[in-house]
Amino acid sequence: MAKSGTDLARMREMNQLSVLWALRGNPPSTVTELAGRTGLSRPAADVLVQQLVAEGWAEVEEPGASSTVGRPARRYRFFRAGAGHVLGIDVVGVHKVLVMLCDLEGNLVGSLRRPVDPKAGLTERLASVDQTIDDVLGEAGMVAADVWAVTVGVTGPVDENGRTSIATQLPGWVAADPVAHLRARFTCPIQVENDCKLAAVAERWKGVAQDADDIVYLLAGLRTGAGLIIDGTLRRGFGGAAGEIGALKAVRWLNAPQHLASCAGVPAGAKPGEAAAWVFRAAREGDSAAKTAVQRYIRDLAIGVAALVLTLDPQIVVYGGGFSRSADLVLEPLRRELAKHCLRVPELRASTLRDEGVALGGLRVALDQVDDRLLGGQLAAPVAPQFS
Amino acid sequence: MAKSGTDLARMREMNQLSVLWALRGNPPSTVTELAGRTGLSRPAADVLVQQLVAEGWAEVEEPGASSTVGRPARRYRFFRAGAGHVLGIDVVGVHKVLVMLCDLEGNLVGSLRRPVDPKAGLTERLASVDQTIDDVLGEAGMVAADVWAVTVGVTGPVDENGRTSIATQLPGWVAADPVAHLRARFTCPIQVENDCKLAAVAERWKGVAQDADDIVYLLAGLRTGAGLIIDGTLRRGFGGAAGEIGALKAVRWLNAPQHLASCAGVPAGAKPGEAAAWVFRAAREGDSAAKTAVQRYIRDLAIGVAALVLTLDPQIVVYGGGFSRSADLVLEPLRRELAKHCLRVPELRASTLRDEGVALGGLRVALDQVDDRLLGGQLAAPVAPQFS
Repeated sequence: MAKSGTDLARMREMNQLSVLWALRGNPPSTVTELAGRTGLSRPAADVLVQQLVAEGWAEVEEPGASSTVGRPARRYRFFRAGAGHVLGIDVVGVHKVLVMLCDLEGNLVGSLRRPVDPKAGLTERLASVDQTIDDVLGEAGMVAADVWAVTVGVTGPVDENGRTSIATQLPGWVAADPVAHLRARFTCPIQVENDCKLAAVAERWKGVAQDADDIVYLLAGLRTGAGLIIDGTLRRGFGGAAGEIGALKAVRWLNAPQHLASCAGVPAGAKPGEAAAWVFRAAREGDSAAKTAVQRYIRDLAIGVAALVLTLDPQIVVYGGGFSRSADLVLEPLRRELAKHCLRVPELRASTLRDEGVALGGLRVALDQVDDRLLGGQLAAPVAPQFS
Repeated sequence: MAKSGTDLARMREMNQLSVLWALRGNPPSTVTELAGRTGLSRPAADVLVQQLVAEGWAEVEEPGASSTVGRPARRYRFFRAGAGHVLGIDVVGVHKVLVMLCDLEGNLVGSLRRPVDPKAGLTERLASVDQTIDDVLGEAGMVAADVWAVTVGVTGPVDENGRTSIATQLPGWVAADPVAHLRARFTCPIQVENDCKLAAVAERWKGVAQDADDIVYLLAGLRTGAGLIIDGTLRRGFGGAAGEIGALKAVRWLNAPQHLASCAGVPAGAKPGEAAAWVFRAAREGDSAAKTAVQRYIRDLAIGVAALVLTLDPQIVVYGGGFSRSADLVLEPLRRELAKHCLRVPELRASTLRDEGVALGGLRVALDQVDDRLLGGQLAAPVAPQFS
């Protein structure tokens, strides 16, 4: 059972949250109204709302000149959605970087993509990111100090310092330190997160999994990855490496997309992405070799999906990533394969977020970062926080 | 962002919890003291504590005769730990049933095991359970109405009706409906849960994983199963089938214990459990065939453990179940196997709960059931609740 000290700390926190919740979603309110809504005594409510004003979470609305009798009460309101903004950045799109900007209510304020050569080195790619951030902020008439939180999506497991420890397809990226790079520009919290995890978050926020709390997200493309949402929360694992089932040879994810690349009839000199697109197109048109290649891809993909499904028993599996454009060819055969392996086959859905999932998920994680400070009992001033 | 209606409901709930927390862990308190501790107005605190008394969560302590001046204030206290009890029942031990009884603070009040023939049918096994319950309650001087919650551990995934859908090694058990059977005796909530899941809960409550929030528990014996605790919470999955990775042929758990059974030198006519015990003993004494059999067992076991570890990235893997008696032979080789497959190898620990994990976990889940009603904002009378 909870200890007494913990209970008292919770109570203080809860009273502060009570006043915040009583402000949020209501018209500007007097202290008397806040006391009535929260059940707190009037003096207690007064102290708490003054603290929130001092910390910048609430604003005072002085009584208007229209008042005629006595001294009208001050009213207090929750800060405006536009008081701050957050950035979501996808730096690991093979052919692009994508930067999105939204306000504190999640309304999209800007979004820009910039093509990047897949062979571009680390320096070149980070320069593209910098330029795209400049353009997004510039178009919105903002500066870096207007940004309250930034999330950057990368490939591979991310450690507590925002570093990736495993080489990826992006040249030189294993040496990257995106937090250090962006720290030169932003004083607000900067978070680095795995791209599959961010795309999973995006599906629950704006995608096809808004109604579910237990979600396995598949980033399906030239590589295959997974992001896991359990009980409504993104799961990172103890060391940030949750969802990396693809590293296990027995589940065949490393091998699965090879069936597409090695399909008979693929035009000579086609790049891997072009080859896969050719195979899906040919399979849709009835080409026998292409249909076989897609079957084999799905059969191998299903082993890893079955391992995730048997482990987590999710409500929904979302098929996302580059190959989700061909979900019409994949979902039903994948469902049949899963039925061979699993005790219970979850619903399969195709992502509709195209290539925006990682940046969108970045926005949501950045907003959660702001909300955590706001509602997590660690109330601090809501001006772009300084990095200690 | 949370909606206004939700916020108001939360506030009411929080105020009620505030008063509960202000009572719990403190000496009997006056309404004025409760108002002071919670920040609530005195009238609000009075209304809330009267509700708690009416519902039986708190008791009034009338002022003693020693008071001399004026009319002394009534004091209120949280109910006693002994106001109610819960049962944890392991019905699926191959050779035994085990029934444990504890009070609302988790203090063990009784525990009894009764040998059962592994070949016993459903009726015979349930009769043993009934008799053991009678004996435990009888020895404690209690009746069924003193029990506030019951949890029963069974094998296989459990659906929302407490039924198992998959045949197990226990004869006739797939037809069992333990909730219906126990309903004849108990009016309190009866929960049925998978044995691996309960044993996982026990490790975090009383076992070797008390310091961890992300735990993979292995029930290792003649069959291999898993229970998952993520972020401090037992994960059941959307349909109750989380942790069933062993059903996937590619992970080789179905095969792993066969290496022990088929080891050269196992005495003719040995039952499977005896064969495994012989192999572990022989391997410890240096028998070459037995050492190879154990190696092969571990190599196959490791594939499934690696799938769980790569999916969840837990802090700790607990090696429990019947084979945990031989953990000295298993843990270090298993760690080496995992290092081949995993990006990050978690700490491995051997369970010390012997064969009590399932019943112990049942107690904790039953206590949580009581606590949920107490603290979950669905406050109801804490007398053995009626099943609707």
